[in-house]
Order: sequence, then structure tokens, then C-alpha cells
Amino acid sequence: MKKILVKLKERSYDILVGAPLRELGQSLSLLLPGKKVMVVTNPKVGRLYAKEAEKSLTKAGFEVIKVVIPDGERYKSHRSVQKIYIQCVKHGFNRSSTVVALGGGVIGDLAGFAAATFLRGIHFIQVPTTLLAQVDSSIGGKVGINLSSGKNLVGAFYQPRLVFADLEVLKTLSEKDFANGLSEVIKYGVIYDQSLFSFIEKNIEALIKRELGVLEKIISTCCRIKAVVVSRDERESHLRAILNFGHTIGHALEGVSGYKTYTHGEAVSIGMVGACKIAGELGIADHSIEMRVKNLLEKVGLPVRIEGICLAWDRFFDFLQRDKKALEGKIRFVLPTKIGQVKLVESVPLTLVEKTMKSLVSKS
Amino acid sequence: MKKILVKLKERSYDILVGAPLRELGQSLSLLLPGKKVMVVTNPKVGRLYAKEAEKSLTKAGFEVIKVVIPDGERYKSHRSVQKIYIQCVKHGFNRSSTVVALGGGVIGDLAGFAAATFLRGIHFIQVPTTLLAQVDSSIGGKVGINLSSGKNLVGAFYQPRLVFADLEVLKTLSEKDFANGLSEVIKYGVIYDQSLFSFIEKNIEALIKRELGVLEKIISTCCRIKAVVVSRDERESHLRAILNFGHTIGHALEGVSGYKTYTHGEAVSIGMVGACKIAGELGIADHSIEMRVKNLLEKVGLPVRIEGICLAWDRFFDFLQRDKKALEGKIRFVLPTKIGQVKLVESVPLTLVEKTMKSLVSKS
Repeated sequence: MKKILVKLKERSYDILVGAPLRELGQSLSLLLPGKKVMVVTNPKVGRLYAKEAEKSLTKAGFEVIKVVIPDGERYKSHRSVQKIYIQCVKHGFNRSSTVVALGGGVIGDLAGFAAATFLRGIHFIQVPTTLLAQVDSSIGGKVGINLSSGKNLVGAFYQPRLVFADLEVLKTLSEKDFANGLSEVIKYGVIYDQSLFSFIEKNIEALIKRELGVLEKIISTCCRIKAVVVSRDERESHLRAILNFGHTIGHALEGVSGYKTYTHGEAVSIGMVGACKIAGELGIADHSIEMRVKNLLEKVGLPVRIEGICLAWDRFFDFLQRDKKALEGKIRFVLPTKIGQVKLVESVPLTLVEKTMKSLVSKS
Repeated sequence: MKKILVKLKERSYDILVGAPLRELGQSLSLLLPGKKVMVVTNPKVGRLYAKEAEKSLTKAGFEVIKVVIPDGERYKSHRSVQKIYIQCVKHGFNRSSTVVALGGGVIGDLAGFAAATFLRGIHFIQVPTTLLAQVDSSIGGKVGINLSSGKNLVGAFYQPRLVFADLEVLKTLSEKDFANGLSEVIKYGVIYDQSLFSFIEKNIEALIKRELGVLEKIISTCCRIKAVVVSRDERESHLRAILNFGHTIGHALEGVSGYKTYTHGEAVSIGMVGACKIAGELGIADHSIEMRVKNLLEKVGLPVRIEGICLAWDRFFDFLQRDKKALEGKIRFVLPTKIGQVKLVESVPLTLVEKTMKSLVSKS
């Protein structure tokens, strides 16, 4: 097990990478003042892991309430948050009570937003069960829900008290879900850590086979990077923006295709290739970077071009300009300068983005 | 005009007491990065003051959108927040945009919660138009909405960038609404400032006549006290609890009577008398304090006993124990030791609370 500290003064917390679920209760009993714990999960994860989590919590003396939210992005909604609030009221939750998110990004964001807002904030624990959640969404306190007009439009910055990541649970992920997380893993290499990128290149077989040693090394490195970035810029005013490498195009691709065609990781994968291309065109980075990134993404089974769908370009550019982090009237891109380093470029010409996007569409 | 700083590191902000509404735009133009401003108000306040606010903002170069929420506590709801979100999306709000709350506590809490959560937080300005909002609810970042099962059960700690209090607007308040605010004003004297309490006693006539000089002196003193308390304890872990003097009983009284019989200030007024009685019974304070506090409350037209309604005691005690700040299974009271000083007393015996409450019921 590796322990990584996210330094945020009085809001600091640990990420435990490779902690077994059966020890969850024990870990939490050292941390939490109250005895009431709500485990929020989805049917699939709940079926596989809720029993073990509940057993461990009960054994440690907690009173456990389970709330199951249907699977899928469309349940990251006000309605689901209300469902959590109602159970909190029903079971007499107060500020010493705790919400535990047992699941992937949807569950983490949703349960986190409920914890952030019930009684203006109660204790919150992340138990991420997908690779994407373990390396990215469970760390850093971004919680929130969707509106019908857009994803993640409502939310808060609210830090968990602990991120508890069991690596064994990754074995039950589908290949698609696993690749979804690998997209963010590769992102960390490109934006921050050349040696992580090389390590992934060299250990690609073991990674795909989900060998625990390699997983622990890679995931803990990713968590360490995210922890450093979040510590330096909790509320996303400058440095944290680098985590959006691949996401400017990625989010717009997800949006324009109604969040159906691509998983988040797949959209970000194409977005990273796009950003590398733009960096090459602007002369910020060598064109070879694009090849190396593209090559690794393909090896783990991620898309690197837009295939088999017809994109509405006008709507794509609408989504592009709707980015939360956009300043009024400007589009920003995070672009690589070399493997392991990126920079923020304000106002990339729309024409260049358009040319790049069109070059990503497969002619077949 | 008096300027009071709320010290909260990078979240510090000013309270302007006695700033004329016609200068709102100018004040905000020095503070805000973006040009889009949404003014959230209610029909009554909107009719009286929205035009002047909008004119001032437009003159300063802002693009102004107005959202009117019906008057009353029951509109401090998810539905109203959604209404604000929808307008934010429609008008392309991003993180440099701003929500301005023009109104009393309901508008401030509601608009503040929308600002705190849209895009995980956009700029927020308080323009309180009631005495209660000027001395209490607009300061300190407590924002939130009600659930059908209880008041303020959902919310956040989210600081405004500025509190802009025009004193002229207090002249259009009804006597009941003005007295509602005076309850909190007197509270500040009891919990923190003996000389404020004496000043109110001496200037009671001028205060009731709403003379601007006396209002500015009293309101700025209250704001200074709240600013100090909030600076030392933003998230209500210890010191901030003293602001709840009178509120333990007050909240329960409001709750048990369905928020219909008493205004917040009236319920707190009775709650303060109750707390003084309990302090006397416990030997923490002299019984004379109760008389002095009661006397002042009566002079400004606030109730000091429970009259003409039949309380359901079981439900009252239910509400009492449901307090947000309650630790599991305990009831806390803020009790005076003398005028200008209070202390936090954990686990006041329920029997004493019951005896006290029954003594507050008018026999007539």
C-alpha cells in the first residue's frame, strides 16, 4: 500500500493506494467523529463490493445506511441528490455524520455534492472503484451534478477526508472502462512526468494485464501528480488547468455526441491527439510528440481519430466555447511542449482548431 | 459610510454600511473581472429598488439580467435555484460572471447558494435590503435553501466579494420587518458588546425612528462584531456558535409553528429570554440580565413570551434536538454570563429546558 498526502492545510487528506476494502472501517474509525455512515453506490458496484464495505464498517462500530443510485451519467442529477438528502434527514444525519462514495466518477461526484451541501457540509470519503476515479475524479474535491443543459454545470470544491483505493476491484472492470482510465493515466505522463510516460511504454503488457505491482506503481504516481497540482491550486485559478490537457476538445466531443458515442477517456484520448497536433502546428512542440502519444493511446485500445460518426461542426464549436474555464470570449488550450511538460495557450485560432479537428476525422 | 473588512485571507471582503445604491455599479466595477451580472430579487424589493441598481450597473458598463423570485421562505427552494441556473446558462455565464442578491435573507441565501454552486462557484455580491440581512445573514457566507423536511438543510459556506448596505432602504421596511432585525441587533449586544447594548438602551427612540446616524453607528458595530467572529471561525467549529444565542429555542419555535406564527427575529427574541432564564437557573448569570434583555426587547416591539398559540411539546423537543450544530445526542446552549459575554454550555438538562419553556407560555 502507498500513502499519498494531499496538502491543503486544515483540509489535507491521504490517498491510500492499494488499501484492501476489508480494512475500510478500521481506517475510517481513526478519522471520523460520528457513527453514522451512508454508503452511496450503484447497482453494479453495490452487488460486487457493498457487502464487504458494509461488513467492514459495521465491524468498526459504524451504523451503515446504503443508498443505491441507478448507473449512468444521467443519474448525476438533482433528483438523485434529493434522494440522498431525504435519507440523510430520515436517519438523523448531522455534521459529524459521513457520506461514503463507493463507485466511479458519477457516484463520487454525486455523493460528494450531497455531502458538500447537506447541512453546509458533512464528512465525505471517496472509495473509487474505477481506474478513472482512482487516478483522477476522486482526488481534488471537484464534486457536482449535471443540468439538462450541460455536464457538471453545478457543483462545489469540497475535499474528501480520505481517498481509499483498493486495486483488486479494478480486476472486475470491463476493458472499455479500464481503457477509460488509462487515458487519464497517459495524460499525467504527457503533462508532468516524462519518466511515468516511459514506464508505461515499457510496461504496457503488464499494465493491460492489470498486474497489481505495476498498477500500484502507476496509480500512486498519478495520484502524487494530481495531489501536487491540487495542493498548489485547489480552486483551479492557474496550475490546475494543466489537468485539462485533452479536455478542451474532449469535452466538446462528448457534448456534441450527447455523451453517447465516447466515454470520457475516449474523448480525451482524441482530444490529446488534437492538442498535440495543434502544438505541432503552432511550433510549440515537435511533431514527433504526437506520434509517440498516439502510439501509446492506440496500444491501450483508445481511439485516436474520429470514426464512423458525423459531427455537427457548428455545435462542436458551440460546445468548445462553452468551457467552464473559458474566460469571456476566449478559448484556452493546454498544449505540450515536450513529453512531461505543457503550457497554457490563450486564444488558439478557431481556424486552426477546425483544421485540426477535420484532420482527425477518418476518411474511411 | 463605514467600511468594515471581513478578514478571511484570499476570501476577505468589505462590508460597506451606508453606501448609496446609485453607486453600486461603480463599486462593483473595481472588483469584478467580468461584465455579466445577474440581479436576483423579489417582486416587492424589485419594484422599489431594482431599477436604481440596474441603472447604476448599466452605467458602469455591466450587462444586467434580472431574475425575480416570489417572496417568501417557501421559495428558498431547489426550484428557485434551478430558475437561476437556467438563466445563467441562457446568458452564457462563466466563472467571471456575477450574481447580485438584492433583497433580504431569503434572496441572499438563495442567490448565494446558486452562485456558490453554478460552475462550482461564480462571483457573488450581497446587497441586503432588510435590517436582518444587513446585520446578520449577508455577512459570513452562510448560503442555502430549504428542504420540505426542514429549513436551511442544504447549503454552503461561500463568501460574497462585497456586502453593499444602503441604509436609506430600511425606511421602507414594515415595523414588523424592522423589529425582526432588531432582535439580532440586541443579540450582538448581549453576546459581545456591553457598550452596544447600553447605546441601544439610550438611543431607543432614535433607533425606532430609524435615524440614519444612529442606524449607521449600530449597524456598523453589529457588522464589525459579526466580521470578527466569522474571521476567527469561518466554518462554525467553535466561536461562531455564539451567534446562535437565542437560536436554539428560536429555531425550534419556528419549526414547531411551521414558520408561520413567528418571524425569525420574534422566535429568537423569545429564545433569548429563554436562554437568559436558563442561565439564571444554572447560576451562570444573574437573574437581572433576563429583566434587562426582556425590557429592551419589549421596547422595540418584540415578543418575550409565547402567547395565544398552543405548542405541541413533543414536536418542540424533536425540533430542539434536530439542530444542525448539535453533536450526536447532545443539546448545546449559548448562555449569557453577563451583558456582553456568553459561553457555550453542552448538554443543558432537557427538564430545565422544558420548565423554562413552560414558564414562557402566557397564562392568559
